[in-house]
Amino acid sequence: MIQVTFRVNGSEVHINANKGDKLLSVAQRANVAIDAPCSGNGACGKCRVRLLKGELESPKTRHITEEEYVMGWRLACISRVLTDVVVAVPDIASAYRSRMKVADLSSPKELEIFERTKAEIEAAGIPFGNNLSAVTVGMAPPTNDDTMPDNERVAWALRAQTGAEKVVFAFLALKKLARVLRDSDFNIRCVLETEGDTATVLDVMPAGDTTPIAGLVVDLGTTSVAALLVNMEDGSVLAKASTGNGQIRYGADVINRIIESGREGGGTRLQKAVVDESITPLAEQLCAAAGIGMKNIYRMCLAGNTTMNHLLLGVYAEPVRMEPYIPTFFHCDDIRTSSLHMRLHPDARLILAPNIGSYVGGDITAGCFASMLWNKEEMALFIDLGTNGELVFGNNEFLMSCACSAGPAFEGGDISCGMRATDGAIDAMKIDKATMEPDYTVIGKARHPVGICGSGIIDTIAELFKAGIINGKGKFSREGRRIRFDENGMGEYIIAFKEDTGLTRDISINEVDIDNFIRAKGAIFSATMTMLSSMGMDPSVLEHVYVAGGIGSGINMDNAVTIGMLPDIDRSCFSYIGNSSLAGAYAMLTSQKSREKVDELARTMTYLELSTEPGYMDSFVGACFLPHTDAEMFPSVQLY
Amino acid sequence: MIQVTFRVNGSEVHINANKGDKLLSVAQRANVAIDAPCSGNGACGKCRVRLLKGELESPKTRHITEEEYVMGWRLACISRVLTDVVVAVPDIASAYRSRMKVADLSSPKELEIFERTKAEIEAAGIPFGNNLSAVTVGMAPPTNDDTMPDNERVAWALRAQTGAEKVVFAFLALKKLARVLRDSDFNIRCVLETEGDTATVLDVMPAGDTTPIAGLVVDLGTTSVAALLVNMEDGSVLAKASTGNGQIRYGADVINRIIESGREGGGTRLQKAVVDESITPLAEQLCAAAGIGMKNIYRMCLAGNTTMNHLLLGVYAEPVRMEPYIPTFFHCDDIRTSSLHMRLHPDARLILAPNIGSYVGGDITAGCFASMLWNKEEMALFIDLGTNGELVFGNNEFLMSCACSAGPAFEGGDISCGMRATDGAIDAMKIDKATMEPDYTVIGKARHPVGICGSGIIDTIAELFKAGIINGKGKFSREGRRIRFDENGMGEYIIAFKEDTGLTRDISINEVDIDNFIRAKGAIFSATMTMLSSMGMDPSVLEHVYVAGGIGSGINMDNAVTIGMLPDIDRSCFSYIGNSSLAGAYAMLTSQKSREKVDELARTMTYLELSTEPGYMDSFVGACFLPHTDAEMFPSVQLY
Repeated sequence: MIQVTFRVNGSEVHINANKGDKLLSVAQRANVAIDAPCSGNGACGKCRVRLLKGELESPKTRHITEEEYVMGWRLACISRVLTDVVVAVPDIASAYRSRMKVADLSSPKELEIFERTKAEIEAAGIPFGNNLSAVTVGMAPPTNDDTMPDNERVAWALRAQTGAEKVVFAFLALKKLARVLRDSDFNIRCVLETEGDTATVLDVMPAGDTTPIAGLVVDLGTTSVAALLVNMEDGSVLAKASTGNGQIRYGADVINRIIESGREGGGTRLQKAVVDESITPLAEQLCAAAGIGMKNIYRMCLAGNTTMNHLLLGVYAEPVRMEPYIPTFFHCDDIRTSSLHMRLHPDARLILAPNIGSYVGGDITAGCFASMLWNKEEMALFIDLGTNGELVFGNNEFLMSCACSAGPAFEGGDISCGMRATDGAIDAMKIDKATMEPDYTVIGKARHPVGICGSGIIDTIAELFKAGIINGKGKFSREGRRIRFDENGMGEYIIAFKEDTGLTRDISINEVDIDNFIRAKGAIFSATMTMLSSMGMDPSVLEHVYVAGGIGSGINMDNAVTIGMLPDIDRSCFSYIGNSSLAGAYAMLTSQKSREKVDELARTMTYLELSTEPGYMDSFVGACFLPHTDAEMFPSVQLY
Repeated sequence: MIQVTFRVNGSEVHINANKGDKLLSVAQRANVAIDAPCSGNGACGKCRVRLLKGELESPKTRHITEEEYVMGWRLACISRVLTDVVVAVPDIASAYRSRMKVADLSSPKELEIFERTKAEIEAAGIPFGNNLSAVTVGMAPPTNDDTMPDNERVAWALRAQTGAEKVVFAFLALKKLARVLRDSDFNIRCVLETEGDTATVLDVMPAGDTTPIAGLVVDLGTTSVAALLVNMEDGSVLAKASTGNGQIRYGADVINRIIESGREGGGTRLQKAVVDESITPLAEQLCAAAGIGMKNIYRMCLAGNTTMNHLLLGVYAEPVRMEPYIPTFFHCDDIRTSSLHMRLHPDARLILAPNIGSYVGGDITAGCFASMLWNKEEMALFIDLGTNGELVFGNNEFLMSCACSAGPAFEGGDISCGMRATDGAIDAMKIDKATMEPDYTVIGKARHPVGICGSGIIDTIAELFKAGIINGKGKFSREGRRIRFDENGMGEYIIAFKEDTGLTRDISINEVDIDNFIRAKGAIFSATMTMLSSMGMDPSVLEHVYVAGGIGSGINMDNAVTIGMLPDIDRSCFSYIGNSSLAGAYAMLTSQKSREKVDELARTMTYLELSTEPGYMDSFVGACFLPHTDAEMFPSVQLY
């Protein structure tokens, strides 16, 4: 038995290991957070630790320089413990922690979009309305001649008042019923869940208590997680927030996450990461903001991709990544949040937006619903810009979907100064062709930016390209005060000097960032083209394009065309519809009819597997250029 | 903040407390087991600890002699901490631990009675049969052209094979479905719970796995807990065991338990005591004996009195003990054992035998069902000899019930050498009138007795009385080798000298034991008389008396009449029917029809509240004598 000691932020964590154990696995067992977005296969070089004492078997790697190796730097994923060791885990956590910060979803434009979506859904004849309600009843206290048990007494009163034929009690309500009745002189407020003739009393409180009957909406993305706390009785939003997906330290994309989940204890690790580090902190913050308890959340609706749904539930997911790509479920009803160790009301049900394929999940069925393209005659494209990019093409007669792997760049992941579209993010940018000076806007009330979100990155790349600062390959070709090259000749554009922002480093974008982003936009564009051509069509058929995702409401469609992310059609066809997965999940939670409609969409939507579609890879390679290797596909961009 | 250190069995437990905190409460918070059967009100004197260091505010009490006080002995329940203290907690636990030992329910006679009850139920037209079953299905594995998700694939196969219209998956089954399918080449065995047209897949395992579909039956008594592990498919008993109720250290009877449950954290404390110290150890032992896992228990049925049911669920119970004595529930459906933190299958339902009053609970509805008195024309009495003694009087036309507090004596509690009717217990006894020498039988294969169970105590008291060794008040009036008097003149009869048994102390019965037992039998007898006279009847109407409970199958009815516990009617009217609550709960678990019948009995049974019945207290006082202060009520006993 070998003792491994991790030094993290000044404290020590000890754990026993066997000789030959992988250091990264040992750290994960000890719950020491080490970033490993490639899932520990040696590819990303992010799991750096420093050996202070003892011996590790640790091959050299391009990620560690000779000098660093001598200083003790190693990659945890390729190091095996040979003796008792002490290793320092650097403050990787600073990036991780800032990614995991729970932030208010404060963009007024996002809210405006959300309100418009709500109105459109109602206008389409899909009303608000669900089966949770609060009912106040009073009754005569028991006497020696009237010794009916409490639950029957309350059931009588509720049957008389609501018309329900059967009244049953959730366990939490039963446990406190006697006390609440006697503390409130037998006048109580009951939270009811009604199903057919049966009303289930989920909770009881003294009459006059006005705590909202709350529900939780979650958009569970591979990189980001957004949530709303809503009042189930009137649909009002009580609070809203977003954070990162805590699983990211086990893998940046769904494939690496599934690989990690297949390792010993991995399923539990990934489930805990998203529940304990993302959803629970979000729910806590939302409850604190609304002044209610976690137990006042009586239902939850979550939209996530198929892999996220499986990993959230702790369902064995390996077959999702291996041909023929079979998930355990598309639909999954009757799960209680307590089964996932969430501390909401113990009988709070979990509604999952339905998946329709291994790589088109509930985020898309919910998001496509919110886009309303299924309700119109015009041929439209719905694009969700997430770590998995998903597309739906169709109208009120047919719906076809596909998915591509874009990576986290749209949400600011894999970009050195990237961040989610929250307060402090640069969300729009102009660059003066002559002076190369930037002019940008920042989300929220912050005086200075702290990073850059997806829409800001699109603008920056488009403006750099239009100003001739970078070429079609994304390489820097001009020089100036804001352009810097490192020893390897890698170029970088400084958006904001640290002297001006007060930050510890400049806000900049470099060639690696640009390259990551070009691959992300290339994946989206080639998926669009492949799906259209599979039906013998091209972009000219598109009457509308709905762009959704956490990219930021500041998205400039013209710039998105300029970099070759969106097809070169009339710019008035484009609309940004915000976080449509979140809006769709909101609708599913608060409106039974919406839920039925989403289920119907999921049943009718077809799924195109791009990985087996001929021409997709070629199309992707062609799209990894600004705007495209085939410039004729972007005639309007030629104008610059 | 004060530090309290408990020394228990050579180890130390530290906990912080506030000045003035009660030492017993501090111990309970620290989970240090101190016996307090009176619930810490200073009455029983059992919570003795020894102060080693520091200061306690601790009044003198009759339970601690002057000498002991000087040595540091205190009662934890009346001591308050003033400074940091170190206290030694004596090995109270030895009595507690022996009470909590999980023992096989090995009496062959009990088993014979159990089998007879099963046969009688079936003969009455109530068949075995429940909605749990195992079904084996095979299916073609998925391909690129057949990408249906696993749950839908299995649902198709199950619908075809079983005729169910809807198939849903319990969470545990869903989590492992993909793995089990692929490990078993898509041939699996499913554990199904069928409700109408819907089959719920509770579990999946490879085809060919023959693990029984198990159910757990529990008779939850105030003092003792008995359990069976059964095969739900054929009703066979896989294993059987009994133990003590872990709540006993918080109070010997239901009233003291409720008082304790009303204290801060008391509800959780009592729930944990019975779940973690009684039911879970029983289930673990049963599973080990049957060679299955706890998760293979798919359902549980429990019979307990109303208070036990409330405390098991952690339901606020104070109103049960306070006029007008209102429980929260009689019936309680849809509880899952996982809500009680039991580690059975997470979707295993808990069926509770229904209560019919605050002091007539599910143990009686289940036990009365098993007695079959409701199926016959003859007027019969059913007596359950537990800590709460409960009675049902009636026939196939009416049923009336009542309850009295007998204390734990029938199960060997409150008796210095008392024990449950398990291996090593003296269960029958004769005493030679002339020599005063005993002649006894011992349950099981033990060569020497280790204690005495209820039936043995009845015999001993009856024989001592008949031999003139004790008088009608239970006081010793003869002298001899086996009679001993202490300094206060309290007499004691030595049943087995330690030199003969190899035990550390003699097995004996003293005047306090006899007094406790006389009060217990007096409660039963006066309840019988009060119930009969409430209907203008007397014992002559009784055509049959069914005696149930953990008293032991060796019960000698003639001796029970001799001590005035049972009415003086023809001895052939009496039958001992064993642990009828357990048998009834077994029937409810394995037979849906039995469950419906028990519910029907509960709805029709009336309840007589003895505490408000005139004459009950007088009747009780008269019955606290051997056989009774009114000797004319026991004409046949006069013969001796």
